[in-house]
Amino acid sequence: MSVSEQPIVGVIMGSKSDWPTMQYAVDMLTQFNVPHEVKVVSAHRTPDLMFEYAQTAEARGLQVIIAGAGGAAHLPGMVAAKTLVPVLGVPVKSRALNGQDSLLSIVQMPGGIPVGTLAIGDAGAKNAGILAAQIVGNHNPAVRDAVRAWRQAQTDDVLANPDPQN
Amino acid sequence: MSVSEQPIVGVIMGSKSDWPTMQYAVDMLTQFNVPHEVKVVSAHRTPDLMFEYAQTAEARGLQVIIAGAGGAAHLPGMVAAKTLVPVLGVPVKSRALNGQDSLLSIVQMPGGIPVGTLAIGDAGAKNAGILAAQIVGNHNPAVRDAVRAWRQAQTDDVLANPDPQN
Amino acid sequence: MSVSEQPIVGVIMGSKSDWPTMQYAVDMLTQFNVPHEVKVVSAHRTPDLMFEYAQTAEARGLQVIIAGAGGAAHLPGMVAAKTLVPVLGVPVKSRALNGQDSLLSIVQMPGGIPVGTLAIGDAGAKNAGILAAQIVGNHNPAVRDAVRAWRQAQTDDVLANPDPQN
Amino acid sequence: MSVSEQPIVGVIMGSKSDWPTMQYAVDMLTQFNVPHEVKVVSAHRTPDLMFEYAQTAEARGLQVIIAGAGGAAHLPGMVAAKTLVPVLGVPVKSRALNGQDSLLSIVQMPGGIPVGTLAIGDAGAKNAGILAAQIVGNHNPAVRDAVRAWRQAQTDDVLANPDPQN
Amino acid sequence: MSVSEQPIVGVIMGSKSDWPTMQYAVDMLTQFNVPHEVKVVSAHRTPDLMFEYAQTAEARGLQVIIAGAGGAAHLPGMVAAKTLVPVLGVPVKSRALNGQDSLLSIVQMPGGIPVGTLAIGDAGAKNAGILAAQIVGNHNPAVRDAVRAWRQAQTDDVLANPDPQN
Amino acid sequence: MSVSEQPIVGVIMGSKSDWPTMQYAVDMLTQFNVPHEVKVVSAHRTPDLMFEYAQTAEARGLQVIIAGAGGAAHLPGMVAAKTLVPVLGVPVKSRALNGQDSLLSIVQMPGGIPVGTLAIGDAGAKNAGILAAQIVGNHNPAVRDAVRAWRQAQTDDVLANPDPQN
Amino acid sequence: MSVSEQPIVGVIMGSKSDWPTMQYAVDMLTQFNVPHEVKVVSAHRTPDLMFEYAQTAEARGLQVIIAGAGGAAHLPGMVAAKTLVPVLGVPVKSRALNGQDSLLSIVQMPGGIPVGTLAIGDAGAKNAGILAAQIVGNHNPAVRDAVRAWRQAQTDDVLANPDPQN
Amino acid sequence: MSVSEQPIVGVIMGSKSDWPTMQYAVDMLTQFNVPHEVKVVSAHRTPDLMFEYAQTAEARGLQVIIAGAGGAAHLPGMVAAKTLVPVLGVPVKSRALNGQDSLLSIVQMPGGIPVGTLAIGDAGAKNAGILAAQIVGNHNPAVRDAVRAWRQAQTDDVLANPDPQN
Repeated sequence: MSVSEQPIVGVIMGSKSDWPTMQYAVDMLTQFNVPHEVKVVSAHRTPDLMFEYAQTAEARGLQVIIAGAGGAAHLPGMVAAKTLVPVLGVPVKSRALNGQDSLLSIVQMPGGIPVGTLAIGDAGAKNAGILAAQIVGNHNPAVRDAVRAWRQAQTDDVLANPDPQN
Repeated sequence: MSVSEQPIVGVIMGSKSDWPTMQYAVDMLTQFNVPHEVKVVSAHRTPDLMFEYAQTAEARGLQVIIAGAGGAAHLPGMVAAKTLVPVLGVPVKSRALNGQDSLLSIVQMPGGIPVGTLAIGDAGAKNAGILAAQIVGNHNPAVRDAVRAWRQAQTDDVLANPDPQN
Repeated sequence: MSVSEQPIVGVIMGSKSDWPTMQYAVDMLTQFNVPHEVKVVSAHRTPDLMFEYAQTAEARGLQVIIAGAGGAAHLPGMVAAKTLVPVLGVPVKSRALNGQDSLLSIVQMPGGIPVGTLAIGDAGAKNAGILAAQIVGNHNPAVRDAVRAWRQAQTDDVLANPDPQN
Repeated sequence: MSVSEQPIVGVIMGSKSDWPTMQYAVDMLTQFNVPHEVKVVSAHRTPDLMFEYAQTAEARGLQVIIAGAGGAAHLPGMVAAKTLVPVLGVPVKSRALNGQDSLLSIVQMPGGIPVGTLAIGDAGAKNAGILAAQIVGNHNPAVRDAVRAWRQAQTDDVLANPDPQN
Repeated sequence: MSVSEQPIVGVIMGSKSDWPTMQYAVDMLTQFNVPHEVKVVSAHRTPDLMFEYAQTAEARGLQVIIAGAGGAAHLPGMVAAKTLVPVLGVPVKSRALNGQDSLLSIVQMPGGIPVGTLAIGDAGAKNAGILAAQIVGNHNPAVRDAVRAWRQAQTDDVLANPDPQN
Repeated sequence: MSVSEQPIVGVIMGSKSDWPTMQYAVDMLTQFNVPHEVKVVSAHRTPDLMFEYAQTAEARGLQVIIAGAGGAAHLPGMVAAKTLVPVLGVPVKSRALNGQDSLLSIVQMPGGIPVGTLAIGDAGAKNAGILAAQIVGNHNPAVRDAVRAWRQAQTDDVLANPDPQN
Repeated sequence: MSVSEQPIVGVIMGSKSDWPTMQYAVDMLTQFNVPHEVKVVSAHRTPDLMFEYAQTAEARGLQVIIAGAGGAAHLPGMVAAKTLVPVLGVPVKSRALNGQDSLLSIVQMPGGIPVGTLAIGDAGAKNAGILAAQIVGNHNPAVRDAVRAWRQAQTDDVLANPDPQN
Repeated sequence: MSVSEQPIVGVIMGSKSDWPTMQYAVDMLTQFNVPHEVKVVSAHRTPDLMFEYAQTAEARGLQVIIAGAGGAAHLPGMVAAKTLVPVLGVPVKSRALNGQDSLLSIVQMPGGIPVGTLAIGDAGAKNAGILAAQIVGNHNPAVRDAVRAWRQAQTDDVLANPDPQN
């Protein structure tokens, strides 16, 4: 599913069980032809890998990191603490609290280390992919135009189907 | 307070009463020498201005829009609906619900239209300014280096003062 | 399902997926013979259509607009920002947060732009239809009487079946 | 503060302590020249008065009832159960839970008996007054125009003061 | 299921759909041989019946009223407003908010009109039955002893089965 | 403040700091001439005293125990586990969570051991005193009449002061 | 499942229905060869057994007690009130509130009596077993090493499977 | 304030602003003569220091680490990910959400990496100090006895002052 070029967006997640959610981010990046990489990196089980991933991100040419995690979701914030590459966080729906814990653990970062947080679950993952493409699109007209076309298509689809009963 | 160049980051807010929070975003942009503009744009009281602002943002050269609002905070999401420029949302602390309403109104965007959301209140505004600079910094080494230096200084400050009792 | 006369109530929703909820509003309007129209209008995917819908509502003779949406539910509030026709909002049950986000995004409007908000989900949609009919009924005796009869029937039904075990 | 004509909007509240909030509803009605009446009616301390108030509302010519209450806020819903006049509910900020209990007690009405609910606190009271005027305005051009002018003024005020720092 | 004597406990609920929960209250009263009656009484759909039920309760010899309701659950509090008979409230699990709205609508009564509130759902209904029997038991040794024996049996059951794996 | 007779209501609280809240329960019992006792009994700091208090309550003639506590408020539920005397619980407002933790810790008792729970804070304490008097009043006409008179006075007070602005 | 030696960790739970959750604690203790015992001890149904269990824990050689409970979860805190052995609490997922009540009832202990609280549900039970082993491991190199090896294996497992799509 | 011996408990916090809360942990350790160290270690501003602190903790002889943090509180969990020394977490009260974010970010750790979490704020910090001493006390009779004496004194204090009005 990854595009065969030097990746400029990294998609990481705390566990394989986050993939059914995080795939929506990857789908959008693929849709917009944004070169990307996908990897399981766990803040709690592989903290050293996480730090290394974050620390080398800028030099490896990443322009955005999308990090998804659930519960006490420390991955996005800790990656953000170790890189200047913009980090987007996706709160994965958790079992007991439906992602309310994930959301607060990701969004409530202290002043100094930002994580741009998206909605809980699939919609948030999808939007992380789109927002990454919008950021990339600032200096990449092809990606910008791909997002523009996709957005227009989504608008046209609503306009063409105004009757909810059909 | 704004830097005298073509602005590349727009900071908007729903009301003058959001300024005590949103100034922290502007402070960071100033700190990092990111040309920016600041304006009150209300989703509910000036919807047409909001649409015009969003619609012309890309052509005017904005690379990031930071939008702060409280309560049923529609400004960030509606601006995002009218532009491809990346939008960052700052949930301003509200009176009855302490910004929980602002946070959910901003972050829970449906799939298709992303808003990168920061923490509730001052820390979130500050982080919006930093994240905007990190995004700009992807293609602007001076801004990237300014953020790097500021981040290092904040680290050094903690390291130099390890004793919480002094 | 719509009544063949100039509509005086408009029922809109952010997505086709809101129809299983919003149909209850339409059912009540049909029940009370209130001429109405039904349409998908998305705040985020079709913002211009939304503004046009709201802007022309008064001239087209609408007396009430019922708007349903879920998550960061901006549709009711943004429509209210563009018209003087009374707007009723229905928070549709969302996936992660069960409509708590929808409720707060709709009800917590800032002073100046009101949205009369109903309960989360099906009951809220049904009640939006009834409340619209009560508003119309202020100057339309036939509608008022239709509501009166329906309300009496619902009371009679409880009175006739006092034993919960049968 | 009430306008000397047959009232068409009734403003009631569960306790004198709700007045600092509910006065904002009355201010707006006065502003728009909507004849109204104001009264303390307690669901729990004066249940019979409440029923009598609700039961006679239609015959007395009320077109809207605005009811404010806090905590286990039963006043709006119980009044709605006894009249066909549209009822708007204002959740007054409560001591321990900041109006979250008031909001849920008012908005989560079962299918069959609607209450159009506004925001918690002062903004909600103000908006209840405006929404009542919008409803009245459907058949009263003077009131409609008064709301229109007031809304335009509020828009103009934002447009005239775009700089949040001044 | 009711005991054939003058009822001293009344069990009411807002809707037939509350019966699967409220039956647990009735089961306990039957278990303890407490004469009781069971009825659907809706605050919103049959307000007059509710007032009459509450108003005549003392004269009819009721010593406790158990009232169950969900959502904006006004039944327990409004009954309490119309009688001096102690009222116990059972928050029935609601659809969107799992009974959090029911709980707050019942328990957060203003000073002056108490409702003794039990847990959300089945456990709360069961406990309402037990608490009613404990109240009756203050002056009825047979009921007190029946509760005592039942409580001892529940203790013995745990003591006899200490291994959770069997 | 206690009435000089064999107490029939016991008022206990987990800490001296609960007194500013719990005094409202005692005030009502005094008002209704219900003989009572008042004591600090801590579930966590004096567990043995708590068990002894609960265990001897029935023999000492108590007809109701009112227990107030904050945070992880175990006092009401643990006392209820050791006596058949009806227990009413008052959630005292806590520092961080405003009594939401107190409320859930008291009201969410498992099936088998009931606690009749009142509102968070002062209103809840006052209502615990009233509800205890209503329970006692089932077999004590003087107390029943005292509550009746007090309730009538509170109603008359509202009726005599209908204007919230005076 | 228990190891045949003098137990040094006690695992208790309020009800057999907590076993599907609490077994994860026992699994980890077995994995790390920590001698343990498992028992149903109910705060509300067997309060005397609970006190006896807690009171004798230190003399019986327990070094950690793991207590799981749901709803108004008093078991961990009350056990902690009767022993100096460290107590870890596991909030079991409850029916209506998904363990939010269990969590607050366990974690919000007043100053003076601590309970070390783990996550809601299965993950919390598993972690209670691990944390108990970490505490035991302070003076037991074999247990410390067993935890170390297990932790390394969990890290290796992530490192060996970096692709979430396989 | 630290005891002049090789520290066996480490108290760390994310910021100097956490000291007014975290001092209560240090007070208890001092009270029980537990050798300890105190340091500001920020997960987000000094991630490398945090890892080094955690990584060397076991070798340096620490038996417990107490970590306090607010908001998206990653410090306790990330330290736990890098050491086998038991970690206790203290959720510091945050500005907008009163520590609800801190609590969830600390307690909701995934299975595999435990943090024993205490109450929000001062009481939690105090209890972290006591729980650390209880853990140390398992193999240190002097510390165990110091806790025992302190606990007895706190019990005696309640017993000696049973009247809340004095």
